Amino acid sequence: MSRLSPTVLEFLASGPLAHVVTLGPAGDPHVTLAWVGVEDGEVVIGTLSDQRKLQNLRNDPRIALSFEVGGQIHAGLPSYLVLRGRARVTEGGAPELLQRLAETYIGPGVTFPPMPNPPAGYVTRVTVEKVSGMGDWD
Amino acid sequence: MSRLSPTVLEFLASGPLAHVVTLGPAGDPHVTLAWVGVEDGEVVIGTLSDQRKLQNLRNDPRIALSFEVGGQIHAGLPSYLVLRGRARVTEGGAPELLQRLAETYIGPGVTFPPMPNPPAGYVTRVTVEKVSGMGDWD
Repeated sequence: MSRLSPTVLEFLASGPLAHVVTLGPAGDPHVTLAWVGVEDGEVVIGTLSDQRKLQNLRNDPRIALSFEVGGQIHAGLPSYLVLRGRARVTEGGAPELLQRLAETYIGPGVTFPPMPNPPAGYVTRVTVEKVSGMGDWD
Repeated sequence: MSRLSPTVLEFLASGPLAHVVTLGPAGDPHVTLAWVGVEDGEVVIGTLSDQRKLQNLRNDPRIALSFEVGGQIHAGLPSYLVLRGRARVTEGGAPELLQRLAETYIGPGVTFPPMPNPPAGYVTRVTVEKVSGMGDWD
């Protein structure tokens, strides 16, 4: 497990969008976007329904999360962060996690998920093994 | 091969950053960011040096490109576009492609690559097989 540096933790707490890469049944790359948080040193993703990415992760836990960093451009490319590791999908807890993240990703005081009695959903917990990208992430 | 819709072509011409997903020697997901263009119905990426993503693509041509679309937010997520397909790496032509793309990604009149006599590099040509994401891309 790679310790997440204070720089990485601060960036993740700012509400960046993760491009979540998982591997399909034939090992093909699959990408969706998601909010992320950090709990107990792991990157967490809340999902209300059993999406394809969760099915992929149960089959192959390898995952990559990539993020653009606004405002810092080098030769036409922004700084970016890539976290690679392994994920496990746990049941329940998605509404509570999403409500917490919504305060950052949408705004303070918002109610999310917006429906009453949302399903318990799933929390995906990512143990980061490699940190890369462009920028000073140490 | 999937025909790229006018909506997708217009978006790609606007200079969005691609999160380029390739597969490492062990099938693990690898991500970097890149500029993209379109030539002859294929998505093209110019690279001056023989980067890891090119080595990956020679071993396994499967590729995914994901893009955030600014300004359109649904429940805290922007619209996004994911293109999946197969890539072939061709030699030469990178400086000319990068110069053309720099006019969009950096600005009109810029000289790029910024060094004299850049290497001929590589152009990666992606045949798109699947178009997905959030938004109306048909």
